[in-house]
Formats: sequence, structure tokens, C-alpha cells
Amino acid sequence: MSANGESNLAIVGAGLVGSLLALSLARRGHHVTVYERRSDPRKVGDASGRSINLALSERGWRALEMAGALEAVKRIALPVKARCMHALAGELTYQPYGLPGRGRFGNDECIYSVARGPLNRILLEEAEATGQVEVRFDHPLHDFDEVEGAVELQFADGSRQQHDRVFGTDGAFSAVRGRMMRTDRFDFSQSYLAHGYKEVAMPPTADGAFAIDPEALHIWPRGHFMLMALPNPDRTFTCTLFAPYEGADSFADIPDAAAARRYFEVHFPDVLQHLPDFDAEWAENPTSSLVMTRCNPWNHGDRVVLLGDAAHAIVPFYGQGMNSGFEDVRVLADMLDAHGGAPSEREWPELLGDFSAERKPNGDAIGDLALRNFIEMRDSTGDPKFLLRKRIERRLTDLHPDKWTPLYSMVTFTHMPYSEAMALGRIQDGIMEEVMDRPDIADCWDSDEVAAHALRLAAERMPLTTA
Amino acid sequence: MSANGESNLAIVGAGLVGSLLALSLARRGHHVTVYERRSDPRKVGDASGRSINLALSERGWRALEMAGALEAVKRIALPVKARCMHALAGELTYQPYGLPGRGRFGNDECIYSVARGPLNRILLEEAEATGQVEVRFDHPLHDFDEVEGAVELQFADGSRQQHDRVFGTDGAFSAVRGRMMRTDRFDFSQSYLAHGYKEVAMPPTADGAFAIDPEALHIWPRGHFMLMALPNPDRTFTCTLFAPYEGADSFADIPDAAAARRYFEVHFPDVLQHLPDFDAEWAENPTSSLVMTRCNPWNHGDRVVLLGDAAHAIVPFYGQGMNSGFEDVRVLADMLDAHGGAPSEREWPELLGDFSAERKPNGDAIGDLALRNFIEMRDSTGDPKFLLRKRIERRLTDLHPDKWTPLYSMVTFTHMPYSEAMALGRIQDGIMEEVMDRPDIADCWDSDEVAAHALRLAAERMPLTTA
Repeated sequence: MSANGESNLAIVGAGLVGSLLALSLARRGHHVTVYERRSDPRKVGDASGRSINLALSERGWRALEMAGALEAVKRIALPVKARCMHALAGELTYQPYGLPGRGRFGNDECIYSVARGPLNRILLEEAEATGQVEVRFDHPLHDFDEVEGAVELQFADGSRQQHDRVFGTDGAFSAVRGRMMRTDRFDFSQSYLAHGYKEVAMPPTADGAFAIDPEALHIWPRGHFMLMALPNPDRTFTCTLFAPYEGADSFADIPDAAAARRYFEVHFPDVLQHLPDFDAEWAENPTSSLVMTRCNPWNHGDRVVLLGDAAHAIVPFYGQGMNSGFEDVRVLADMLDAHGGAPSEREWPELLGDFSAERKPNGDAIGDLALRNFIEMRDSTGDPKFLLRKRIERRLTDLHPDKWTPLYSMVTFTHMPYSEAMALGRIQDGIMEEVMDRPDIADCWDSDEVAAHALRLAAERMPLTTA
Repeated sequence: MSANGESNLAIVGAGLVGSLLALSLARRGHHVTVYERRSDPRKVGDASGRSINLALSERGWRALEMAGALEAVKRIALPVKARCMHALAGELTYQPYGLPGRGRFGNDECIYSVARGPLNRILLEEAEATGQVEVRFDHPLHDFDEVEGAVELQFADGSRQQHDRVFGTDGAFSAVRGRMMRTDRFDFSQSYLAHGYKEVAMPPTADGAFAIDPEALHIWPRGHFMLMALPNPDRTFTCTLFAPYEGADSFADIPDAAAARRYFEVHFPDVLQHLPDFDAEWAENPTSSLVMTRCNPWNHGDRVVLLGDAAHAIVPFYGQGMNSGFEDVRVLADMLDAHGGAPSEREWPELLGDFSAERKPNGDAIGDLALRNFIEMRDSTGDPKFLLRKRIERRLTDLHPDKWTPLYSMVTFTHMPYSEAMALGRIQDGIMEEVMDRPDIADCWDSDEVAAHALRLAAERMPLTTA
């Protein structure tokens, strides 16, 4: 502790969550040293190998606002208003994400596409601009130890640094968590999907326009595999194929670009025309795996705590990976603020334990929801019954936004704890199953009677928090 | 590969499973080097900190027989014929483990108590006596790498050794598995029980006899905690308290030997009289945690594979930790024998993949069963309804051993794959629930009608494998 009560804090990992945390801690008067294993992306370019664009939604915005970074990020964020499903025959189906006029900026509720690199740079620069944050790149963590009244970080080059408190924001393969795994009674799991993904860029047209509708996230749902395309501010789209590693229609079936071209011709016939560099991109880009991790607790005693992917790596299918990590930072900042921004040596231990206890069930919930959404996106979005259910829910929300908030909206556009949203979503599933059970539902789905039935069940079964 | 086609094999971990595997491989003509991080227990004594006695049952015996070690182990094994439950008021209830006259040695079916240290020494010495096995103690594995046509093991002292194939039998915190965890698409979980355990020795009486009935495993079931006592060949008992770390009746409530004495006086009043060294033992012995691990796959490519706790650490409540590890060795040996004991370079890859695919579901199943047995032992064994169900099942088996084999017997006295036993056990649960549903079951439990009902349901629902 420095003389004035401000702590000497360390963050391991200068990715999105680590940068936002550094900024948030600095704004509360703390001195922060951030250690990052990679080189400075501002000097060498982004070599993280991770997907290049991300969906930013309300939970993320609120955290950015808390840290005073909202305006800067808003300038690089591209609104995406709807899902657009591409049927095999070329037919398009649009589902708006949210309600008209209820968005954060007075617009329609929507999600935002942001590029990882520029977002990371903005957050790092805002953090450094506080004068309270020093970022040390090329510092891979090797190990840490608790010493008298501090944590000693040991780096791969043999150097050591002591800090009062350490925040592990070093991602799905966290070295901080790796060290915690060797302590007694630390629960951990890592599990991989049977699916991998590969990205291919869709450039702008010859006259510089987006090649396909830029206000939508595009999905080509094909059952056990799917293609997705998310627009970028530079008028490209990032197209991502999610497919099994083995078996029917798998990456094992696509040994080279020629095979991939045939695969796209068969399954995504309206896409190849927009991918002039397909063969080269396919050959060059890696096929990456999808991992989920869980652990408990998120804190290691009184001095170390995990946030973001280091605590709860999830699959990308709810667009909540970054948002949930940013929400971790926002919740921690709220807890700090309950102690005037700078908890005392006596207050930190309980704070870290409380943070772990509060966030862990929510990390689990968004992990479950994201996995479930994979099924929905690749499979159900091509199912007429599923689309009818979505239409009925949409109508309920349009008619009575105070009485029916779909699960997707609770997750994407509110700050309700994920675990609560998941519990309410289960109740909604039961209600919608009863509603959909009518044999004539396809004919009367938009009747007052069906709406009244659903809303009556909701009034009976849903706690008031949905209002 | 040596000139004569025998492989140059390495085993990491010279515990029970590693020693038995070394012996089994040597008997098939292989040269085996065993690396062990600890010092030779024959020189320094057993310092593993692990529980000192173990239950050996049919799966273990068959593996020992396959390796030619049965006779040597039989001499140090103590038969345990029944569970003996101690009620709070002192009343004893006996449940024989198996059927009369159906044991492996012409005796009644029973389990056997063996001490870890002597068993490990026998297996190591039998392995070394083949002249094909070299054991290198004080060799903690640091890492391994695949190199051209081999695996290079790197030890903590910086030395390196290359082998054709590496078997990881280095326990629940396996260094081999730790390295595999860093490879893409390797699933892993470790989870700890909320309960810990502490051992206390019960010495023989003044005239050298067992202090309590030596033919039984004793249980003091107390709901969310329990005491167990397993006899040892040296006429001691190892008493083990399993209790939660926190909350009611937990280790947190027992800060010292005086508090522990009061705890025993209240909950296990018939035990303290047999524990003259209680205070010293309590103060000296650690409280240990209980971990379960799972991973997938068990093999790392064509050259590395895990067996025993390294692949599937389970809780000790089914007495199957060692037995399941020994069965891993027996199944692997059977697969080797399908290739004349020494698979070719071309045959090894498929063999290791097949081994992982076959054993993984069985490791999962015995993990689930062992956890479930914890509930049964500490809780249900004090429940009259549970005891009545056990009596009915026992009667069915006595009357028709070909038509009803209780789950415990399938696990303990057969070689049916654990996953199959678990599936049959679920069907039995359903049948016994129906049978127990009769309001007058307490009066007619031993009637012909109840037996006929259960056996009719079994004939309808159970595959023939139970016969």
C-alpha cells in the first residue's frame, strides 16, 4: 500500500477486459501495472489469432460508460439491427433484434459490431492517458506466489514484481488461473465443442459499398453447421463457417480450397460471388477450436481474482463473451465504489469473495445460454415452428413490452443477472410450449386469444422482475 | 523400436497402477523404464500422504492374476465380508457384501483390505524381478514433447529421455495430463467435494486382538457426515472421518483435538474407547480434500496414454479407485494380447484410440457411481426404507441369483463394464421404486408375491446381461 491508501495493483492481460479494468481502476485513483505476454499491438499489429469482430450490446455499453470510454467506442461501432436468415433457396427472413426507439442512443434496440483491434487500442490509450497506468508488453507470466502482505509475480524472463492485488484477465488459457489450478479445492473444467470455425473476409463491392445488407447479422443455418457474416465498419464482412471437425459436412470433408469452394457452392450458393479472394483466404486462415471454461472460486484468497474469459470462457453464439467480461468489470467497480473506490486492506478480502460468489453463477448461466444459442442459430432458425414461436413472442412484446421480454432481449438489452434471465427464459419456454400446442396455432398465432393466453400464463408464473 | 520389435516403453508414476502396468508390459517382453517423482518407498518409507488401506475386489484380482501377481498379493489381503452400520444408540446392522460360496477363492463373496505400501512394494518387486523393468525414483516429470518417431520426456533436473510410447500413471494431479491439457481440444475437469477427510488409527487391544469386528467395514452414517473403519492385516483399523469443510458438524467446528473428542463423544460414542492415541493422531494427521477428475481423450496422439487416477480420479466411496485403475491395465493388456503382446508401429495408434474410447465411458460411470455411493453410505444406510429395499434385493438374489444381481455386486464382483452396470442399476432403481410403493411393503416384503412382482419387472426390462 502506498502512503495515501491507494493500492499498488497489477493486471495480467492487456486484452479488452484487462484494458477496461485498468482504465476503471485508474479512474478510482489506483496505480495500475498491466502485464501482457504479447507485444504492443500498436507496434506489431494484432497477432492474437482471435476473431476480429465482436458484438457489443447493452451490458458492454454500460461498463464502457462507467469507465468514461463510451463516446470513443461509439465512434467505431456499427449498429446491427436484425438477424437475416438465408435459406438454401435464397429466401431471406429478417428478425429485428429489439424494440423500436428503445435503444441506448434513442435509436431502435440493436447490437453493434466493433473490431477487436481498434477497440483494444482505444481502451489501452484511455487507460494510459490517465497517467496512472503503465502497460508492460512482452511479459508472459510464469507463476505467482503469496509473500508477506503481497503477491509476487514471476515472469518468463525471471523477473519478479510484488503487488498488493492481482487481477487475472489473461483469457481462456489464463496463466493466473493455471497457477490457481494447483491449489487445493479449486474446481476447473475446460471443454471443447465438436465444432471448429474458420473466418473468410468478404470485401466491399467494386464501388466501395457493403456487399450484402450491412444492418444485419447474416446466418445461413444448415442444421449441424452454419455460416455467419457480421459487418465491419470498414465495409467488409467477416464470414465465419462453424462446422464439425469430423463426420458429415465437416472440416475433415474440406481438405483444400477447391473442396471448400464446392462445399460453399452446395450449401451457401449466394455467398461465393461476394468472396473474390476465397481460395487464398481459405488456404491461409486457420481452423480454430471453441473452448468453454469454468472455475470456482474466481478469487485466490485475499489478493488474486479472475475476470472475463480467464474466469468463464464461453462460446461466441450469444454475442456475450466481451459483454459478460465487461460486466465483470462494471460489477467489480460498483463494489469498489461501495468503499469509496479504494477498499481498505481489511475490506478487500470480503470484496473479492463477494465478487466471486456473485459473478460465478452468472458466468455459468451465460456459458449455458451461449451453448444453447448455438443449437438455435445453426438449426432452429431454419425451423418454421421455431420461427412461428419467435413471431408470437415478438407480437407479445410489441403489444405489451412491459409484460413480455424475450430471453434474447433480457440477455442483450438489460442488466438483469444472466442467471435470473436464464431462469425466466425457462418459464417462458414452458409457457410457449403450451401456447404452441394448439393444433391451429399456425392460423391463429396473431389472435387476441393466443396473446391473452400467453400473457395470463406469464402473469401467473413470472416474477415481477420481467416488468 | 529395438531390433526384435519390442518397444522401448516408459511409465510415468510408480504407484499401484504404474507398477502393475510395468509388470504386465514386462511379461509381454517389453523393456520398461518407470519414472517416479518420489524417492524409493523401500528406502524412505511411504510418504505419499494418501490413505493407507484400500479395498481390493474382483476387478483388481483379475488384473493381478493376468500379471501373475495374485498369489503374492493374496498373502497380504484381509477378507471383509459385510458392512456393519453403527446407529447412534449403538445398535449394529450387518449387510453381507455378496453371496455365500461364490467368492473367487471358493469362499463367500467379499472384498479385501490391503495396505497401500506393502501392495506397492510387491508389485514393484515383481516388476523388477522380470529383469525387463528399471525404476528411476526422484524423477519428477517436467514436460514432454513429440519428436521424430518418439516422445521426449523432460525431467525437473533438466535430463531428457526418448521413448517409443509413454504411459501416464502419475495420479490425480498427473504431470503427463498437465502437459496434455495444453493441447487443443483436450477436455478436462477437476472438481472437489465440499467434504474432506481425516484418518485416525485404531490400534489392537492390549491382548493383540482387533478392537472391533475385523470381518466388517464399519460405518457410522450420520446424514451429511460419517465415520468409516476398515481393518488392516496388522490388526489395526483405519478410521476415517468424512465431514464437510464448512457448516454444521464440519471440520470448521473441530479446531483442535479437544473439540474433536467432544464431536466423537456426541456422534460416535462407541468409538473413542478404542482410540487411545486419539488426541495426538488428530493433531498430527492432515485434513485432506477429495477430488474427482475427468478428461477426454485419454490418449495423446499415437504415443501417450493415461491410465488410473491420471485419467479418472474418483472419490473413494465405492472402493473402486484402485480396482478401476487395475482394470484399465487388464483391458490394455487384453488389447496388446490381441496383437501377440507387442503391437507393431502401425497397430499402436489405433490401439491407443480404441483404449481411450472403450475405457473413458467406464471411467465416467465409476466416477458417478462412487459419488452416488457417498450419499448412500453416509445417509441412506441409516434410513429404514433404504435398509428394507436392500433386504428385498438381498432376498431376490438369494432366491434367484441368476435373475437379480444388485448394482453393488455388478460393480464389485463382476467384470461387466461399469457403464453397463450403471445403466442396469438405473432400471433396477425404477423396479424397486414400484415394488416399494406398496403401502404394506413393510409387512409383505418377504412374500412370494413381492418377489414375483420384482422378478417379472426385471424379466420385462432388464437385458439378458444381468443373468
